[in-house]
Amino acid sequence: MDNFFEPPLIGACIFGQSGGPTAVINASAYGVIRTALDSDVITNVYGAAYGIKGVLNDELYDMAEEEDYELKLLLNTPSSELGSCRYKIADPEVDDTDYKRILEIFKKYDVRYFFYNGGNDSMDTCNKISRYMEKVGYECRVMGVPKTIDNDLFGTDHCPGYGSAAKFIATSCMEVGKDTDVYNTDMVTVIEIMGRHAGWLTASAALATEYGNGCGPDLIYLPERDFDLDQFTEDVTKIMKQKRNVLVAVSEGLHYADGSFVSEAKTSGTDGFGHAQLGGLAVKLANYLKERMGLKKVRGIELSLLQRSAAHIASAVDIDEAYSVGKYAVEAAINGATGQMVALEREDNQGLYSCKPTLLSLSSVANYEKKVPLEWITRDGNYVTNEFINYVLPLIQGEPRIPQSNSLPRYARLKKVKAKPCEKATAE
Amino acid sequence: MDNFFEPPLIGACIFGQSGGPTAVINASAYGVIRTALDSDVITNVYGAAYGIKGVLNDELYDMAEEEDYELKLLLNTPSSELGSCRYKIADPEVDDTDYKRILEIFKKYDVRYFFYNGGNDSMDTCNKISRYMEKVGYECRVMGVPKTIDNDLFGTDHCPGYGSAAKFIATSCMEVGKDTDVYNTDMVTVIEIMGRHAGWLTASAALATEYGNGCGPDLIYLPERDFDLDQFTEDVTKIMKQKRNVLVAVSEGLHYADGSFVSEAKTSGTDGFGHAQLGGLAVKLANYLKERMGLKKVRGIELSLLQRSAAHIASAVDIDEAYSVGKYAVEAAINGATGQMVALEREDNQGLYSCKPTLLSLSSVANYEKKVPLEWITRDGNYVTNEFINYVLPLIQGEPRIPQSNSLPRYARLKKVKAKPCEKATAE
Repeated sequence: MDNFFEPPLIGACIFGQSGGPTAVINASAYGVIRTALDSDVITNVYGAAYGIKGVLNDELYDMAEEEDYELKLLLNTPSSELGSCRYKIADPEVDDTDYKRILEIFKKYDVRYFFYNGGNDSMDTCNKISRYMEKVGYECRVMGVPKTIDNDLFGTDHCPGYGSAAKFIATSCMEVGKDTDVYNTDMVTVIEIMGRHAGWLTASAALATEYGNGCGPDLIYLPERDFDLDQFTEDVTKIMKQKRNVLVAVSEGLHYADGSFVSEAKTSGTDGFGHAQLGGLAVKLANYLKERMGLKKVRGIELSLLQRSAAHIASAVDIDEAYSVGKYAVEAAINGATGQMVALEREDNQGLYSCKPTLLSLSSVANYEKKVPLEWITRDGNYVTNEFINYVLPLIQGEPRIPQSNSLPRYARLKKVKAKPCEKATAE
Repeated sequence: MDNFFEPPLIGACIFGQSGGPTAVINASAYGVIRTALDSDVITNVYGAAYGIKGVLNDELYDMAEEEDYELKLLLNTPSSELGSCRYKIADPEVDDTDYKRILEIFKKYDVRYFFYNGGNDSMDTCNKISRYMEKVGYECRVMGVPKTIDNDLFGTDHCPGYGSAAKFIATSCMEVGKDTDVYNTDMVTVIEIMGRHAGWLTASAALATEYGNGCGPDLIYLPERDFDLDQFTEDVTKIMKQKRNVLVAVSEGLHYADGSFVSEAKTSGTDGFGHAQLGGLAVKLANYLKERMGLKKVRGIELSLLQRSAAHIASAVDIDEAYSVGKYAVEAAINGATGQMVALEREDNQGLYSCKPTLLSLSSVANYEKKVPLEWITRDGNYVTNEFINYVLPLIQGEPRIPQSNSLPRYARLKKVKAKPCEKATAE
């Protein structure tokens, strides 16, 4: 943090959450809010309702009105507590309406710090706001705080949110693997895991196979490789010769060589599906195998929203890191940083895992997608290598103490008191 | 236990697991196996591979060959570790082939105790074996050990397996409820929960609403009441006037007044579904509302096998009780009981929850299904009453310490050494 020697910038801050929620995005919120509330130079801490839309709609909450205890519960509260949005902000050169409005709100509340927590699109929003404020000469420090279960953010070793999702996926695969193995009959189970373009989440199912007493998936298919129904059938048939119960993990984003999604394959034609197949990809592939291989028992399971909201089984490492990137964003901004995203950098620590926060220019990360390296996928395209396992294992470590009430998780209850413009801004 | 004064019966025992697995059926296995191994009168403890089929196929494992530590891990290992079956045994008056074979195996291994862990069908199997052995004059004590996530076993306050499934369901509903509430747009999410004829599991979703900061389902539909699509649409519309995000829990066994399952409703005709709707009930109902109410965002989620295998979030009360019914079955049998199932009886303990094991005649429980009392469903049929909440809340209490390895659950690894007939039996 000693690279910055700017004079302190006194003013308020706005924090917003954007994109799909994760099990730990609220831990980053706590990192930002707590650090900002405790700082000497940040005068007011505002939470934006529903991301950037809260700024545009002048819907801000005064975080100083919240109880410390409730704020701390954000560490174990899943989803985006302040609300989120999927709003694609225009290019300021094309249409600067939104930017003028943002500037108006920034002035109204004397906002000098803006922290935006999200994935690729959110970093793009953040970058555009940063550049606009610089262009119009409004002194303001704009920082991106990374999150996404998909782990596809460029420039960071991994993303807060990914480790907890990976832990839920691995544990669930172990449990489902155990469950489907009870009858002495041939059976194929297909588990569908999130990830439209990047296979990080699906790949994490391999942890169940490697460390879960072998009750994880036998085959894993990622969207980084083209999917082929014949090869898929051949792979399953081969495993079935060795064991009667086959577990397959597939990414929702599986696509054929022509780029078309397997999940969207038409109900007739040359795609290999002879029958109407609605419902998820898992059911579709399971039914396909049932017919083609003449199986009696198949099952398709979609982990759906559970995989991104399962805070009850979050990784302690993930929570810590989510908190730390939020905290670091505030500290770096106070010290002069702007136009940056906090990234995690894995350190070489004599074989022990550790990651430290670092800064990357927002323009270098916005709009790039990081995929699973092809060399981390086995040659036959149906499993992952040890390099991937070594990468992901540290990220799921540690069991947090989850605050409970009646043996159910006790989530944060925020008052969400509407913010008033601070005196200084009103006086101007 | 002092109701029995039979002379000690010396001999081996067989333990088998049957029907669908649960998160805690292995805790009952541990209760039976540990108590039997420690007893002075039970000479050998055999585990049947795949339930009664293991007896018929002479596939028995010698439980004395297992490590104590691994056996104890059964307390937190989901699914049926010895394997299960869904085998409907014939009536002995119609066809006694299986019974003769069972008797042959019992004699071969000098089996004097038989413990069978399962639901309705398994208690029927148990009852038939018990009556047959009595009829042919083979001295043998046959005991049923209850389990089922469905909680539909007659005569017991509740079933081991139910509390853990209920806890997973309530927690998942909280997490999904949080997750679906992040965007400022209208949305309906339908969650499908197991239970073909009884709504106990689906009803447990109400815990999320009552104790989860209100982030549980707004509407709950059980198979104990006829389902009506118009009423359903009206209910959802009414809630949507109060809040933009509606969460609905439905039982997989929902049926119309004519008894036909909603999940199996034809793709055209008078059932109200205008389009081909394969896939699960949740997706089907969500898509129905989307069209009928003109909604932009709907989602269907099926909790699938996760709800019965999620040992990582098992209820400590459930684990304790699952263990205790197994233990009690062995103790009661040693003391002379036979032809009985262990049941749980809720005690009036000055407002504090406690249940004690008790015995019921197998013939009184076999083949009866216990449903949610109609008076525990609200008058408009879309939620549950406080009586139900008071019934279920104690069953999800307590967080067990889950043994872990690499931050994933560490399941039992049994050697499964094939059993040899004991000397006494061979000598005969």
